[in-house]
Amino acid sequence: MDDTSDRSAGAATLPLAAYLARRLRQLGVDHVFGLPGDFSMGLLDGMLEGTGLEWVGTTNELNAAYAADGYARLRGFGALVTTYGVGELSALNGVAGAYAESVPLVQVTGAPPRGAARGGSLVHHSLVDGDLGHFARAYAEVTAAAEVLEEASAAEQVDRLLTSALRELRPVYLSVPSDLTALPVPAARLQQPLARPASDPHALALLGEALRSRLAGGAPVTLLAGHLVRRRGLGQVVRRLADAGVTVATLLGAKGLLDEDHRSSAGTYVGALTADKATRRAVEHAPLLVLAGAVLSDLSTGMFSAELDESSAVVLGLREARVGDLRVADVDLADSLELLADLVAPHEEADRPLDQAGLWATLQSWLPAGTPLLADAGTAYFGAAELALPRGTELVGQPIWASIGYTLPALLGAALADPTRRPVLVIGDGAAQLTVQELATVLQRGLRPVVVLIDNGGYTVERAIRSPQATYHDITDWDWGSLATALGGAHPPLVLPAGTRAELAAALGTAGATPGRAVLVHAVLPRHDVPALLSAIATGLSASHDAGADDVVGQPA
Amino acid sequence: MDDTSDRSAGAATLPLAAYLARRLRQLGVDHVFGLPGDFSMGLLDGMLEGTGLEWVGTTNELNAAYAADGYARLRGFGALVTTYGVGELSALNGVAGAYAESVPLVQVTGAPPRGAARGGSLVHHSLVDGDLGHFARAYAEVTAAAEVLEEASAAEQVDRLLTSALRELRPVYLSVPSDLTALPVPAARLQQPLARPASDPHALALLGEALRSRLAGGAPVTLLAGHLVRRRGLGQVVRRLADAGVTVATLLGAKGLLDEDHRSSAGTYVGALTADKATRRAVEHAPLLVLAGAVLSDLSTGMFSAELDESSAVVLGLREARVGDLRVADVDLADSLELLADLVAPHEEADRPLDQAGLWATLQSWLPAGTPLLADAGTAYFGAAELALPRGTELVGQPIWASIGYTLPALLGAALADPTRRPVLVIGDGAAQLTVQELATVLQRGLRPVVVLIDNGGYTVERAIRSPQATYHDITDWDWGSLATALGGAHPPLVLPAGTRAELAAALGTAGATPGRAVLVHAVLPRHDVPALLSAIATGLSASHDAGADDVVGQPA
Repeated sequence: MDDTSDRSAGAATLPLAAYLARRLRQLGVDHVFGLPGDFSMGLLDGMLEGTGLEWVGTTNELNAAYAADGYARLRGFGALVTTYGVGELSALNGVAGAYAESVPLVQVTGAPPRGAARGGSLVHHSLVDGDLGHFARAYAEVTAAAEVLEEASAAEQVDRLLTSALRELRPVYLSVPSDLTALPVPAARLQQPLARPASDPHALALLGEALRSRLAGGAPVTLLAGHLVRRRGLGQVVRRLADAGVTVATLLGAKGLLDEDHRSSAGTYVGALTADKATRRAVEHAPLLVLAGAVLSDLSTGMFSAELDESSAVVLGLREARVGDLRVADVDLADSLELLADLVAPHEEADRPLDQAGLWATLQSWLPAGTPLLADAGTAYFGAAELALPRGTELVGQPIWASIGYTLPALLGAALADPTRRPVLVIGDGAAQLTVQELATVLQRGLRPVVVLIDNGGYTVERAIRSPQATYHDITDWDWGSLATALGGAHPPLVLPAGTRAELAAALGTAGATPGRAVLVHAVLPRHDVPALLSAIATGLSASHDAGADDVVGQPA
Repeated sequence: MDDTSDRSAGAATLPLAAYLARRLRQLGVDHVFGLPGDFSMGLLDGMLEGTGLEWVGTTNELNAAYAADGYARLRGFGALVTTYGVGELSALNGVAGAYAESVPLVQVTGAPPRGAARGGSLVHHSLVDGDLGHFARAYAEVTAAAEVLEEASAAEQVDRLLTSALRELRPVYLSVPSDLTALPVPAARLQQPLARPASDPHALALLGEALRSRLAGGAPVTLLAGHLVRRRGLGQVVRRLADAGVTVATLLGAKGLLDEDHRSSAGTYVGALTADKATRRAVEHAPLLVLAGAVLSDLSTGMFSAELDESSAVVLGLREARVGDLRVADVDLADSLELLADLVAPHEEADRPLDQAGLWATLQSWLPAGTPLLADAGTAYFGAAELALPRGTELVGQPIWASIGYTLPALLGAALADPTRRPVLVIGDGAAQLTVQELATVLQRGLRPVVVLIDNGGYTVERAIRSPQATYHDITDWDWGSLATALGGAHPPLVLPAGTRAELAAALGTAGATPGRAVLVHAVLPRHDVPALLSAIATGLSASHDAGADDVVGQPA
């Protein structure tokens, strides 16, 4: 009960759709993304009417999922509402990406009424084979839990599902038959807010003992933090550890978790591709290494080149932990990291044509502290990965899922999630073509990000991996300035072209001096130029795709 | 072996990727759609090199699926190639739509090498849970068959899969591990082209006897043809029946199968919503009704208002048939309809602001014969459904799946499939926002369609169904002319605004007189105006969504 607009206060029941909306608001969700469809409109009316939830219509469902993902990364939870079949299936890639990247959100489907499902009738948006369960089963493959609501248990199902998302940090799927949206639900349920299930106290005590004895030798501790630490919102605990002298390195997905100019920061570790040898030494030769919330996937480990002795490390996972031979389940990362903290705590360039090196050096010297920085898969993400991020700046991207175009709709979500900060997006032209429509929603809602568009005539990241001259890397040629203006309606962005380092520096300066308006920096770069980190990863990727069946590709060393 | 560019002629083996390409070319596929990804580039190189297959890069994977669908409707088969996870999942909605609408195509995924799958390694584009099978299982829900290739049986699997698509007229899913693309396959296999499996001769003979005795009474025959008749390419057989005096009515999905001015044409039957009472009488009171390739779904039957006595009708399905109590399996629609044929055969307006009525009346008087007419779900499709189509004109749309935005990428496919005809697309602004990027590919390939954009400020089809004033029906405001110009590169379209009937007539006249250039007619219409047929269907839809569990919604009467 966190606002005064709740019309259900005092009433004994409220409609199911309003109940779902109230549950979402309790989780910090003030905006839902999506498109309406005939099976979802009753649900939307019920969710939006008097609940304080705001609708953000996107131009397609994939973009809605990306926007909800970007929103959840800053707010802790996200939601999208789509219609059955044609709507929900277009969001599947985005929801799967949220699974891979551990982002909690709910995909809510407005489904045909139960009578249609039971009668096997041949409704539109179905496969006309009388089976309405295909799409929920497809979603079960890419979510932590999936529920089709039933009359007798609808409220319990909603609560169980959202709790799963909180516990697992994964997306969940909720299908609401259109005839159930007005089902009365006891309002008293709302007095007990949903929360991540607590750790098992006994298991936590066991872990505490084991950690204490491991630390007793006095060996200096190095913490290698992965993206789950950020997703659980544990930046303050990491800072407390760093202030107490624990060396902190991050994997790519947690870059910026600790200010990189903090005296205890050892930078970003990418296995053998780590830029700074000192970072690599700090991690690989650590007397006592703690892996926290780390998923050692191919891109995050420099194509499995990380040399970590996992058997001797302390491993704090999302819901389990390991110290030597002791494995404990039902221990949440938030509690185990807190436990660890309790135990430990006592430049400028001459002008020349813009290239990748110049782009990132110029951004580095301009990037304001406290900026949500979004970088799309491809040259943008790998370039951003090599930045030394200023205080309070965090990098949003998809190092695991790597679905190009993700960040443009995610920018919409991020900008709405925290309107006090001005986001910066760096995205390639190839990626932007996939999801460019959402720029209209960003602009026409009066949001004012700085978007740096890297115009290099196609999928340069893929040119780096294989067949650089192949025409399938090419894209159609767009007039990006006119396009952005066409999409802006009454809020066209300031369009600033940049073909040299000085032009880019000037454009960014202008962007900084124009905080009240969205800015598109149109940066023209060479077709085949890539950041150094990407070049190294591309070589590894290219080799792995041609490996035979007997080579187990990509196993950690 | 249908061209001279086949480098494998004479060789004992050819690489698997080239084998797949050759099989597709044998099925009439000269273009493949998609986007490249790091797991699919080796596959693409192998499929495109020296096989005569042309790559058509689209801006996202959903659009690739829609384009392949549009292509398959004219060519008989379609193909798209995407990368693992992030690529293929975005195409799922489009492939599911092809399933619902019975369109044969293959979604080819370039997948991680087998070593990664067996070793459970945490590769990018996966859910990093060590299971690489999630997405193939999701695809199994929306395809007739799904195969992940294995070394020992790869060529057999390809052939089995494509044959399934031909037999079932449904999409299939093919996953090619990146290390198998160069696997040598016996070239001799190609000498036996793939074909739809023949009917069982014994079953066919049984059916012939039953039909002969049913026809013996001399009752006049009415054929009600559904979309499967068109998909099997049986227009000539239907014409033969019509010439012999069989009355022919069509369901929505087969509209235009027979010229509607043919003396035996009874028009389009939509249950109780049929425009012409004579059409309804011809079907519902037919002395001998033959249902051919008909799927009686909600939209195609006027929300289940069709009054057909299916028990006394002759039913010719895609792979089975029924006459009275006799049911025969393994009889293909092509053969059963041919059998039936063997047995039977011996205007202008004063100028005023444009509205839906004026739009369709003006199009009616202009539409050239032989035009592939694409109409997107919503006001466009239901308006087009009421047209009397001129000779050789066929209507392409999605009456079953109804995924908005489909037709713009499908236009790309249709225009490439038959470059001798100039397609006309009618699409609403809401729908166009989902897939607008593909206009760039259409224009920059030098294609020259006439696109009529209905600008009515949002999802008018949904306004007609429920909550007409809700803001979730609204979309962002775009400058369509500038946008089309921005996307056109060196081939910008001719943009012609039309706010009145006379302006529309003039614009269409100009379009007709400018065959060498793409034309965008920007038609501005009232926000709440809809064609009559849609208005009637919307009323039915609205009621069905609020029906309770005990009402079996939408069962045929």
